[in-house]
Amino acid sequence: MKFIRFAVNSKILTGVLQDEIIREIKGNIFENWNYTGNTFTQDQIRLLAPLEPNQIIGIGANYVSKAEDLPSKLPEIPVFFFKPTSSVIGPEEEIVIPAGIDQVKFESELAVIIGKEAKNVPEEEILDYVFGYTVGNDVTAPQFFHKDGHWTVGKSFDTFTPIGPVIETDLDPFHVHVEARLNNTEKQNSSTKLMIIPIRKMISYLTKVMTLKTGDVILTGSPVGAEFVRSGDVIECVIKEIGTLKNTFVSLKESVKSY
Amino acid sequence: MKFIRFAVNSKILTGVLQDEIIREIKGNIFENWNYTGNTFTQDQIRLLAPLEPNQIIGIGANYVSKAEDLPSKLPEIPVFFFKPTSSVIGPEEEIVIPAGIDQVKFESELAVIIGKEAKNVPEEEILDYVFGYTVGNDVTAPQFFHKDGHWTVGKSFDTFTPIGPVIETDLDPFHVHVEARLNNTEKQNSSTKLMIIPIRKMISYLTKVMTLKTGDVILTGSPVGAEFVRSGDVIECVIKEIGTLKNTFVSLKESVKSY
Repeated sequence: MKFIRFAVNSKILTGVLQDEIIREIKGNIFENWNYTGNTFTQDQIRLLAPLEPNQIIGIGANYVSKAEDLPSKLPEIPVFFFKPTSSVIGPEEEIVIPAGIDQVKFESELAVIIGKEAKNVPEEEILDYVFGYTVGNDVTAPQFFHKDGHWTVGKSFDTFTPIGPVIETDLDPFHVHVEARLNNTEKQNSSTKLMIIPIRKMISYLTKVMTLKTGDVILTGSPVGAEFVRSGDVIECVIKEIGTLKNTFVSLKESVKSY
Repeated sequence: MKFIRFAVNSKILTGVLQDEIIREIKGNIFENWNYTGNTFTQDQIRLLAPLEPNQIIGIGANYVSKAEDLPSKLPEIPVFFFKPTSSVIGPEEEIVIPAGIDQVKFESELAVIIGKEAKNVPEEEILDYVFGYTVGNDVTAPQFFHKDGHWTVGKSFDTFTPIGPVIETDLDPFHVHVEARLNNTEKQNSSTKLMIIPIRKMISYLTKVMTLKTGDVILTGSPVGAEFVRSGDVIECVIKEIGTLKNTFVSLKESVKSY
């Protein structure tokens, strides 16, 4: 099932996408919802980010380029980071490059959406706590990484976390490819089998540290091939079974660099 | 004015603390609220964390030990990090040290609570966006810091962010001392004038990166003197004008260390 959030005129609605038709629903997608009976076609609506995340957690450097490079031993402490929920935008919205920034990268990723509170959940059961999946773009300005390794500022600018187009609840996350096309040229295309810390281990580990909550979004890392972009570039992050998340980069004139 | 959240039996209520009396209120402390007419004495209630933060942002290494050490030039990129909202506990709750962890530190801090959406706000105006202040304890397990500098895991364990006891809206944050007492012995006691990146600059900088939202909490850094603790230790984080945030450390038996 494909859940979406969308705008019709100035109203924000939730729906299910079914054979090109959008069927409006009412309620909470995680708990209880019903069809309202209203339907829309895609040209009547504007897609929004498919949810307003509770929190966003990313993992760094989580793909190898080929299966032979997968390490026999997992890193003792994974590189996790948070992104602010205020950085989220939806499909077709502009990714704004602030004026003080010269170098911005796209990073196409499989995003996992937590469906219910999860604490100390073993690997084998962790997928029971996953509601669905979407595509994420973990936009990054490495120039704002702290020299001592803290990535927060470089990943936190407004518009730096496009997600969408839909939440797909019926996905086998172990048999999909995470792709990116920059101005129609393929830059990333890797099976999720190339993740260093695989999905189950990653989320189970997180639940051993913190209680994950409904609506938490976990960005599972980006395949090799992410590149720097410039204003006007069009980035499409793709997981075929979910859809295409397309955004355009634009430059902002005012500087954000100083205190 | 001192806002609190508290439990009476199993009900969670909001109130104003006035001359030792708790006057219940109804509504949203950030927008619109009214007194219900109900009052309680302190022995009738159990204090909770004074708010459920929208997000929690911390700053690293932000105090010098004496004014002469304040740098003439501020760091170009501050060390910011997020803590999960699921790590929040209130006064008197136990801070749980998971079994895989040998070394845990307390860090007493002034916590700033954002009262309305703030983006690109200049220093001079930033305090208009602050709703109030509380005391925070940025509990930290440095053993779970990644060797490449990422602090997320080491700061994210459940119960690692005590806040409270009240939100004080009438505080001059530039003339208070941030203190910590471990088992009744003073360990931290510094004026907020010893912050390397002062409060206005810190929050203004954040708003140049990201849109801050109502209910965001900013932990403004901890004075020199934080120490490792063990199970049974009692930590009191104090800002006299706000109150004392007291918690006890306890050890958990199950290990969280492995995948």
